[in-house]
Amino acid sequence: MDVPFLDRVMGQEEGVGKVDEFVGQLWRGWKQIRDEGTAQPLHLGLFRSDYLLHAPSKDVPTSLRQVEFNTISSSFGPLSERTATLHNYLRASTGYYDSSPYLKAENFPENRTTAGLAEGLAVAHAAYGVPDARILFVVQAGERNVFDQRWLEYQVLESHGIHVIRQTLDELAKSATLDIKSNVLRISSTTFKSYEIAVIYFRAGYTPSDFPTSAQYETRFLLERSRAIKCPSIPLQLAGGKKVQEVLTKPGVLEHFLADEGRWEGQTFSKDDLAELRASWMGMWGLDDDDAETSDSGAEAKETSGVRKAREQASSLVLKPQREGGGNNVYKSSIPPFLDHLPPRERQAWIAMELIVPPEGLGNYLIRAGSGSEGGVKADVVSELGIFGWALFGDPSVEVKEKEIGWLVRTKGKDSDEGGVAAGFSVLDSILLVDD
Amino acid sequence: MDVPFLDRVMGQEEGVGKVDEFVGQLWRGWKQIRDEGTAQPLHLGLFRSDYLLHAPSKDVPTSLRQVEFNTISSSFGPLSERTATLHNYLRASTGYYDSSPYLKAENFPENRTTAGLAEGLAVAHAAYGVPDARILFVVQAGERNVFDQRWLEYQVLESHGIHVIRQTLDELAKSATLDIKSNVLRISSTTFKSYEIAVIYFRAGYTPSDFPTSAQYETRFLLERSRAIKCPSIPLQLAGGKKVQEVLTKPGVLEHFLADEGRWEGQTFSKDDLAELRASWMGMWGLDDDDAETSDSGAEAKETSGVRKAREQASSLVLKPQREGGGNNVYKSSIPPFLDHLPPRERQAWIAMELIVPPEGLGNYLIRAGSGSEGGVKADVVSELGIFGWALFGDPSVEVKEKEIGWLVRTKGKDSDEGGVAAGFSVLDSILLVDD
Repeated sequence: MDVPFLDRVMGQEEGVGKVDEFVGQLWRGWKQIRDEGTAQPLHLGLFRSDYLLHAPSKDVPTSLRQVEFNTISSSFGPLSERTATLHNYLRASTGYYDSSPYLKAENFPENRTTAGLAEGLAVAHAAYGVPDARILFVVQAGERNVFDQRWLEYQVLESHGIHVIRQTLDELAKSATLDIKSNVLRISSTTFKSYEIAVIYFRAGYTPSDFPTSAQYETRFLLERSRAIKCPSIPLQLAGGKKVQEVLTKPGVLEHFLADEGRWEGQTFSKDDLAELRASWMGMWGLDDDDAETSDSGAEAKETSGVRKAREQASSLVLKPQREGGGNNVYKSSIPPFLDHLPPRERQAWIAMELIVPPEGLGNYLIRAGSGSEGGVKADVVSELGIFGWALFGDPSVEVKEKEIGWLVRTKGKDSDEGGVAAGFSVLDSILLVDD
Repeated sequence: MDVPFLDRVMGQEEGVGKVDEFVGQLWRGWKQIRDEGTAQPLHLGLFRSDYLLHAPSKDVPTSLRQVEFNTISSSFGPLSERTATLHNYLRASTGYYDSSPYLKAENFPENRTTAGLAEGLAVAHAAYGVPDARILFVVQAGERNVFDQRWLEYQVLESHGIHVIRQTLDELAKSATLDIKSNVLRISSTTFKSYEIAVIYFRAGYTPSDFPTSAQYETRFLLERSRAIKCPSIPLQLAGGKKVQEVLTKPGVLEHFLADEGRWEGQTFSKDDLAELRASWMGMWGLDDDDAETSDSGAEAKETSGVRKAREQASSLVLKPQREGGGNNVYKSSIPPFLDHLPPRERQAWIAMELIVPPEGLGNYLIRAGSGSEGGVKADVVSELGIFGWALFGDPSVEVKEKEIGWLVRTKGKDSDEGGVAAGFSVLDSILLVDD
């Protein structure tokens, strides 16, 4: 974990935390805890990296481009597996009525995401080293996506014999206690005995609305302070920020992380590797980027080169704030008026990203349950691919453990106004592999 | 298949078919078909043999005694597997709150009944020898136990790539056709293409109410006449009759089937084997049994020794007619008045069986969903064990294939009036193996 890097990009003193209250709160809590001394060096990530196909013109080959990288509450893994099972059952059962020669068994890849996610949690549990300790799922009250989480819980119990406790931050405010000396986290209540927690898996805490009062932050920090392995820790959550995604594209940053001989004892990535990785990214920059590099304190008031560039290229851009959960992005023609009213100090929280241009003319029927004869809609669609993986890392004396484990496809109606992936009609889908 | 034996015991000329209209109908249909020439020598059985613990007194060891042997529509295999999974999940999840040292993982035996039943169907399908042919499930209209059947259907498709078609006898009256020369059975309709049927699995046709008119019998016989392998064929269905169960207990009958050197080329069962098998049976006799052995045509009007014995021992007996589905038995004190009014010619359809005496003092809570606070009932219970197996047999040129595949437990409230297994409150349950 590169603490100075995260401080610079996401921190409250120099980074996004200056202007984003939520990021600032998390960063301040983390800062205090690490100043006291961190009880657990390991971080667990259950990650999902999302991609769209990019086909801007017939002159260039279609390529996969990264939309974002999720370090917290990467969802829909188990439901994606159920969807793949459904599509494979329909193939076996109906042969899709011979509607396409591609719809044959060998083109349906396996989806074992649930077992993979469970293995990540189990490996962290083993690293914690207390067999009877449990895994805590921190969940939102009234969670609607509960079945996605329950499949994972059952798999953890069935395959690894590890028990899961589900609690909200509000419940944990009453039930969670930290041993002052050992930093062992225990959960107790009138109905439970008291259980030691080995791993904390966050399916809540990624959005400001999970923290209506300071009490929820206090609970989050109590969990962070514990010896339990966090999935993710606060710094790993911050590392998933949009601003980090953008900064990684700046010259030299990728080299700093992946090609520093001194850091990796010769086991570095080659120039070709880095070029290939960069080729999966769209162009990005910060609205606070400025060629002028003035140290004039009045500079904030002036328009940065980052903002100017965003105005000029607005028709092929999306602006993304430091917010999870979607629905906050600003697209194309909405960008100039938005920039007119964006307070200069908030520029730091926003990145500009070239829009991915999905292939044209991909149609499908989107079916919604319970909508009667109007439940089926023929639509131009765009499919987003998610690749799941896990990593356990952070202790210099222990080798990093990591694995790529599965996939997710979400197919959405393509809103021609916005050109990209609009909110709204979206369904879980499956991969069909086709030789090209 | 011992045709003369079945004719003698179940046929219309000498056996149960004389007095039981349903058995007579099935037997007549079978007789006509075999006189024409049987198109398919193989029979498939998916069997379930049911047992109760017998503990009549403290002086004799508790033993397992056979209740009955099912040759048609042996149900609850897949649901039994789900129940075992549920109980094992509850063990893993709660440890049953340490309520008993027996409730540990190694005491929960595996239940893979669904895969075993599917394998039986698949082996028959392979023996039929047409890879694209389908399996026909003959089902009742408005079947409530459909999920038990669907799990099996999905397993057959998933594990063996074999498609299942579900139809009622009434649907088959329109959709089923038989090729006159080849006796190939095909199912067609406006929504299906036409499919050849390799195996017919009956989950209907075991009770007279499945045959409200002669049309359903005609359809049943069309299926029987086909080259498809029947599970069960009519003779195999008849072999499951209560009367057959009783006749097997008569001196010499077991020896005829299992210890005839000429028949089995030396591969026979030993006397000890036969004694062990007999030890799993209760005493049984036919109400038409008569020591007097008169050939006097007026004998029917007199009370046979079988009836006299039933009167004398009524308090420890159950009378069972040739009927599937339960609810037709006559117990203990109800026996003498019942015998007073039983027309003498119907004696042939009834057997007397000594009541199995289940162990005393086994209590449990029986929970019924949706019954509010009155849904839980503490009751003395009795548990019935079912053992599933399949066999493919009947072609002298092909070795018999067979396998024991799984189990079922049903636990019922013990009605002290009747002493045995009364109808009513009954739940799916699981085995817990305990060293004694």
